[in-house]
Amino acid sequence: MRSEQGERVRTMQVRTVRIVVSLKPGVLDAPGQAIRQGLDALGHPGVQHVRAGKYFEVELDDDGRVEERVREICEGFLANTLIEDYRYEIL
Amino acid sequence: MRSEQGERVRTMQVRTVRIVVSLKPGVLDAPGQAIRQGLDALGHPGVQHVRAGKYFEVELDDDGRVEERVREICEGFLANTLIEDYRYEIL
Repeated sequence: MRSEQGERVRTMQVRTVRIVVSLKPGVLDAPGQAIRQGLDALGHPGVQHVRAGKYFEVELDDDGRVEERVREICEGFLANTLIEDYRYEIL
Repeated sequence: MRSEQGERVRTMQVRTVRIVVSLKPGVLDAPGQAIRQGLDALGHPGVQHVRAGKYFEVELDDDGRVEERVREICEGFLANTLIEDYRYEIL
């Protein structure tokens, strides 16, 4: 949007989205296994299972289609949907 | 705990904990910046800010001090508390 003077005017609110990307169930999670074994060896028994993933906090302009854009961003860039699931929470 | 026969008996429930580790505010987040610039270049304008972090889903025996153990695990192993914050949610 531009004002009468041609300057860019920001009228959109910014939304924060929390995104978690993690391996699909059944896909070997080598880092997670290594962490579990390491914790056990380093004095933390009783940890049954660890799965490692990625976390992103994204702030984007609210143009009314935030959810659609978040899905495009996740599927196109942040997650490899062959082996990873993603979930998000729009704050 | 051991049964009368000396076998190990599992009586503890397992709790799932979701842990997010992210850089403290003010610490340069180069991956997050690269993602933001990449999204902009690849057709996703309007992303103001990205912060990248790590996500862990941990299942551990509930011995009555789950929260204390989770903090120890985060501070000792999963997070570098000089530059990273962590938060967790015990399900």
